[in-house]
Amino acid sequence: MLRAVATAADPGTAEFDPLVLQRLLDGSYVEFRDQTREVLSRPEFAPPIALPTKEYRAKVLEWARQLADEGLTAPGFPVEYGGKGDPGANVAAFETLAFGDLSLLVKFGVQFGLWGGSVHQLGTKRHHDDYLKKIATLELPGAFAMTEAGHGSDVQHLQTTATYDRETHEFVIYTPHDDARKEYIGNAAQDGQMATVFAQLIVDGEEHGVHALVVPLRDGKGRLHPGVRIEDDGEKMGLNGVDNGKIWFDNVRVPRDALLNRYADVDDDGRYQSPIENPNKRFFTMLGTLVQGRVCIGGASISAAKTALTIAVRYGLTRRQFGPPDGEQVPILDYRTHQRRLMPLLARTFALHFAQDELREKFDHVMRQENAPDRERRELESLAAAMKATASWHATHTIQTCRECCGGAGYMAINRFAALKADTDIFTTFEGDNTVLIMLASRALLTDYAHDFGGLNPAEMVTFVAGQAVETVVEKLFARKIVQVIADAVPTPNSEHGNLEDREQQLELFRWRQGHITASVANRFKRGLDEGYDPFEVFRAVQDHAIVAAQAYIDTVLLEAFAGAIDRCEDEGVKAVLNLVCDLFALQNVEADKGFFQEHGRLSSPRTKTVTREVNRLCNEVRQNAGALVDSFGIPDAILGAPIGLKEQ
Amino acid sequence: MLRAVATAADPGTAEFDPLVLQRLLDGSYVEFRDQTREVLSRPEFAPPIALPTKEYRAKVLEWARQLADEGLTAPGFPVEYGGKGDPGANVAAFETLAFGDLSLLVKFGVQFGLWGGSVHQLGTKRHHDDYLKKIATLELPGAFAMTEAGHGSDVQHLQTTATYDRETHEFVIYTPHDDARKEYIGNAAQDGQMATVFAQLIVDGEEHGVHALVVPLRDGKGRLHPGVRIEDDGEKMGLNGVDNGKIWFDNVRVPRDALLNRYADVDDDGRYQSPIENPNKRFFTMLGTLVQGRVCIGGASISAAKTALTIAVRYGLTRRQFGPPDGEQVPILDYRTHQRRLMPLLARTFALHFAQDELREKFDHVMRQENAPDRERRELESLAAAMKATASWHATHTIQTCRECCGGAGYMAINRFAALKADTDIFTTFEGDNTVLIMLASRALLTDYAHDFGGLNPAEMVTFVAGQAVETVVEKLFARKIVQVIADAVPTPNSEHGNLEDREQQLELFRWRQGHITASVANRFKRGLDEGYDPFEVFRAVQDHAIVAAQAYIDTVLLEAFAGAIDRCEDEGVKAVLNLVCDLFALQNVEADKGFFQEHGRLSSPRTKTVTREVNRLCNEVRQNAGALVDSFGIPDAILGAPIGLKEQ
Repeated sequence: MLRAVATAADPGTAEFDPLVLQRLLDGSYVEFRDQTREVLSRPEFAPPIALPTKEYRAKVLEWARQLADEGLTAPGFPVEYGGKGDPGANVAAFETLAFGDLSLLVKFGVQFGLWGGSVHQLGTKRHHDDYLKKIATLELPGAFAMTEAGHGSDVQHLQTTATYDRETHEFVIYTPHDDARKEYIGNAAQDGQMATVFAQLIVDGEEHGVHALVVPLRDGKGRLHPGVRIEDDGEKMGLNGVDNGKIWFDNVRVPRDALLNRYADVDDDGRYQSPIENPNKRFFTMLGTLVQGRVCIGGASISAAKTALTIAVRYGLTRRQFGPPDGEQVPILDYRTHQRRLMPLLARTFALHFAQDELREKFDHVMRQENAPDRERRELESLAAAMKATASWHATHTIQTCRECCGGAGYMAINRFAALKADTDIFTTFEGDNTVLIMLASRALLTDYAHDFGGLNPAEMVTFVAGQAVETVVEKLFARKIVQVIADAVPTPNSEHGNLEDREQQLELFRWRQGHITASVANRFKRGLDEGYDPFEVFRAVQDHAIVAAQAYIDTVLLEAFAGAIDRCEDEGVKAVLNLVCDLFALQNVEADKGFFQEHGRLSSPRTKTVTREVNRLCNEVRQNAGALVDSFGIPDAILGAPIGLKEQ
Repeated sequence: MLRAVATAADPGTAEFDPLVLQRLLDGSYVEFRDQTREVLSRPEFAPPIALPTKEYRAKVLEWARQLADEGLTAPGFPVEYGGKGDPGANVAAFETLAFGDLSLLVKFGVQFGLWGGSVHQLGTKRHHDDYLKKIATLELPGAFAMTEAGHGSDVQHLQTTATYDRETHEFVIYTPHDDARKEYIGNAAQDGQMATVFAQLIVDGEEHGVHALVVPLRDGKGRLHPGVRIEDDGEKMGLNGVDNGKIWFDNVRVPRDALLNRYADVDDDGRYQSPIENPNKRFFTMLGTLVQGRVCIGGASISAAKTALTIAVRYGLTRRQFGPPDGEQVPILDYRTHQRRLMPLLARTFALHFAQDELREKFDHVMRQENAPDRERRELESLAAAMKATASWHATHTIQTCRECCGGAGYMAINRFAALKADTDIFTTFEGDNTVLIMLASRALLTDYAHDFGGLNPAEMVTFVAGQAVETVVEKLFARKIVQVIADAVPTPNSEHGNLEDREQQLELFRWRQGHITASVANRFKRGLDEGYDPFEVFRAVQDHAIVAAQAYIDTVLLEAFAGAIDRCEDEGVKAVLNLVCDLFALQNVEADKGFFQEHGRLSSPRTKTVTREVNRLCNEVRQNAGALVDSFGIPDAILGAPIGLKEQ
C-alpha cells in the first residue's frame, strides 16, 4: 500500500504547548538557564562575523568578564569561594552558553572549567584559598597545560618533567624536547597568567607518573615568566576568539606547594607520598576528577545541534520550492527527502538530551561526594566518554545536514552555520579523541561483562585501551558464559512478530543487540589470545568490532533515557509528542542497522520493509510538530541570530 | 579465525611506481595539468590564511589575471578566440586548479566557465566576436546571473522578466519583487562588468520561458549601470576571495541583440522564433549546454578529496600513538579503526576518478558536435548531475573524516582543512542542490526503464522532478515487465556462493541491485497512480526510494569505470594495486548495503560476515600501499602546503 506524505500542514498544528516541553527540557536549572539566556540576549553578545582575531579575542575576554560580573562563572565552586557548591549547575551553564558564541563558550570552559576545575579537584585548601576566588572573578586568568605536541589523547605518556630539587624544596619544570612542548593550550597565547601543568613527577630519580602543578606563565602586564617560552598557535579553523598557544619550559622553578596535592604529595623530608599506591590507579583517579570537561562538551554538542535544527526546521517550514503543475509551491519540509534528512536528527537530539540529563545528574551525584565508590566513578567516566563522542559526532553530522538543507542561505555567515561548523569541529577531538573515547567506553563494557559473567575482579580483566594495552587474559569460564549468552539470543517468533512500536520491545531489541555484540567481541578477543596472538595484535584486530559494541551500548542508553523521561512526563500533550519522537528515534536506529538485525535472525525481510514504512510515517508525523519541537529548545531569537531561522520573522 | 592487522610496514613497501599511476590518472591532459601544477607551485600562489576579505578578493583577481596571461583560462573556446577548441581541457584545468586555493578556482569558474561558457554556448557569432576574447583575457569580467533569492535549483520558475519593447527594439530587464533579485552571483559585488541574465522572456504579452541575455552591470571604473542595484552578499562560510552579490534590475534596457540567440530569437519584425517548438524542450536544451559547470564541480570535488587524503594518509603514516606495553608506539594508520576510516574513502576516490574520466570524455564528445543526438545529451546530463552530487557529498565526508584523523593538528588553519571544509561546503548546493540533482538522475533512470520495458516514447514517460512534476501515467505493459524483472532477480545458489572477489560477480551484483531498485520504484509509482493518488503526492511518497535508485545507479557507474580502467592498464604493478583498491571499493559498498542484500536474498548471514572480514583484510593491504597511492595524485608539496602532509618532511 502506498503511504502518501501528508499535505502541507501549518507550522502551528502541534497539540502540545512548547513552553511546557521547554520547562521539562530545562529541568532542575530553569532559573539558571533563564538568567544565562537573558545575558546572552543582550545586543553586545551578538555573534561577530569575520572579526579579525585580535579584536575577537579582546571581545571574548570582555564577554567572559561580564559573565563573571553576573556570577555565572563557577557555580560548581564551594560557596566560600564565590560558587554555589552545585556541580550540575556548571554543566547547565555550559549547555546554555553553547547556544551563543562558541569562542566565548570555550574561553569560559578553559578558565572556569579546566583551569579552575583542576585547581578545585586536584588541589587542596591552600590552593583553593590562594586561587579559586580569583579564578571565578577572572582576576587570575589561567590555562590547563596537559596536551603535548607528541601526545594528545595518550596523556599517560606526556614527557614534560617536574623534578624535585630537595636542596631548594622546589620542582623544576622542563620540556625535554620539542615534541614535549605543551600544544593547543587555551588562554596560553595571550591572557593566561598561570597554568595547571601536567608533568612526569621525578623525586630522587624515581618516576611517579603524571602529576599536576601550578606554574606561572606571565605577570599581569603580560611579561613572560623567566624560563617560559610561548608561541601563538595562530589561526585555527574556528574558535579564533580563544588564544591557543604552545609552551616550552626551560627549567622553570616552582615551590613545593605548587604541586596540586589532593592525591599525592612530597613531604617536608622530600619523600613522595600518596594514599593510592598503584600508580596506574592513582593516575586514572586524578584524571577521573576532570570528567567535567567531557560532560560539558557532550552537552554543548547537543546545544549546537539544537541551534542548527532550529534554523533548518524553521527554514524548511517557510521556504517553498517546486510543487504540483500549476499548483502552489510546497514548503520544502513537506518533501519526504527533506523530512528524512532532518526528522531523525531531531529525534536523536531529543534522545541525547535526555541521556545528557541523566549523565549530568550522575556527575552531580558523584562530585558531591568526597570519595564516591569506585564503581560509580567508573560508570560515570565511561558514560561521559561515550556520550562526549556520540554527541559531538552527532553535532558535526547534524550541523552539516542542516546547512545543506538551507541551501545557499545556509552558506552565508550571517545565518550561523559557518561559525557553528568551524567552531564545533574540534569537539570531536578535544577532551579526548572520539575514537579513543569510544574505545574507553568499550573497555568498560567488556570489563563489566567479564565481571558479570566470569565472577572475576574487574581490575584483573581485559583492559586494552589508551596506553594500558592488554594486562590480563580471560579465563575459561568467561568463554563458556559467552556461548550461553549467544544461545539465549536466538530469536523467538514473539520478537519477530512483536509490535516494534511497543516501547518495551524496542528496549528489548536494543539491549539484546548490545549484549550480543559485547559477547561477540569478548569471544573474539578470547579466541585471539587462545590462538597465541600477541595481545596488542588482538586488540588491533578486534578494535573496529569493539567500537560497534560501544555504539550499541550508547544507543541503549539513549533509548532508556528517552523512555524514562516519557514515563515521568505528566503533561499528556507533551507525552504524546515525545512518544512519537521516541518511536522515530528507535525505529530509524533499527532501520539503519537492519543489516545486523537480519544477520542475527532478529528481523525478517518483510519486517525490515515495514520498519522503513513506519519511519516514513513517523517522519511525517514528527514534521507536523517540528516547529513547536524546535521552539521548545528555548533559543531566543536574539541569541539565534540567523535571519532565516528566527521565530518572529 | 582471527585476522590480525599486519604489523607496521614502512611507507615504502608498495610494489608499483606511483609516477606510472600518476600518468595514468593524468590521462590525456598530462602536459596541461603539469603546466597548471607549475603555475600553482609558484610562491605567490601559496594559499592565504585569514586574509581580510578585501585583500583576499584582490589577490584572487590578480591570480586569475596570471592564469589568463599563461593562457590557461579558456581551452574550451574556439581557437579564433584564444582557446584550443578542446572542451575536455576546460574540465581538466578545473580539476587541477582544484588542488590549490578554491576561491581562485571558483572565480575562474565564474569568469571563464559560467560567464564565458554561457556566451559561448547560448550566444552566436556576434556575441562570440564581441566578447569571447575579452572574457578569456579577463579584460571583460562578467557574471552568471541565474539564481534568484526565491528560486535556486528550480530555474524554470525564475521571476526576473525581459520584456520586448517593439518601439525601441530593446529588452527591458526587470526585478518584479524582492524575492526575484539575483542572489549569490559571483563576480557581481565588485568585478563584473556584464552578466548573462536569465529571465522570463515576454514578447507582445506572451511568455516564452527562461532565456539568457547579456546585460551591463558596471563600467570599467566600477560605476553601476543605470537601473542596476547591487549589494554585496558579505561574509560567507568560505570562498571569501570571490565577490558574491545580489542584483536588482529596475527596467534596464538592452538592445535586441543582447539576447543570446542560439536557440531562440526575436526577429526584425519583433516576432519570437525558435527552432525548438516545445518550450519545455527548449528550456532544457538551453540548460543542457551549461552542463560543464556540473562536470567541473564533480571533478573539483574529487581533487579536494585527494588533497585531504594526501594529508591524512601521510600524517597517519608518520604520527605514532599508543602501542604495546613497553613496546614502540605504532603509526596510527596501523590501527584498524584508522584504516577503516580512511582506506574505503581512498578506494572510493579512485572509483570516482575513473568515472570522472569517462564523464569528461562523454562531455568532450558531446560538446564537439554542433547537434549531438538527444539521447547522448540526456545521458551526459543525468550522469553529470549524479556525479556532481555523489562527488561533492564524498568530498564533504572525506574532508571531515581526514580532519578528524589528524586530530588537533588538523584544526590548525595552516594544515589546509579549515579552508578545504569551508570552501567545498557549498559544492553540495551550487550548480544545483544535490538532492534535486539526484532526483534528476533518478527521473532519467525511470524514463529509460519505462522506455526499455514499455516500448514507449520517453517523452511520454514519468517525469516527476524539478518543476516538471508528473506529466503522464505508466501503462499496463510496463507493470507486467516489472514483475518479470523482479522474478529474474531471485537469487541463484551460484551468486550466493560465488566469489565476491571476482570482478564480474561484483559487477553482476551491482547491476542487479540497480535494476531491482529501479523496478521497485517504478512499480510503486505505478501502483500509487493506479490507487488514484494525485501524481504529485505519489512523487513525494516515493521520493526517498527514487534517490536510492539513483545511488545504486551511480555505484554501478563507479564500479564499471574502475573495472574498465584496470582492464586498460598495461603496467602490471599498477594493475595489481588498482585491483586491490577496486576490491575494497566494491566490497565495502556491499558491506554498507548488507541490509538490502539480505532483504532480497542475495547475501546470507554467514556471507555478510565474510564480506566484513574481507573488507578488514583489504583495508590492511591497501594501507601497505597508501603512501604511494596518495603520491600518485600528483599534488606537489608547494601546492599542498600543509606542514603535516608534505612528502618531503
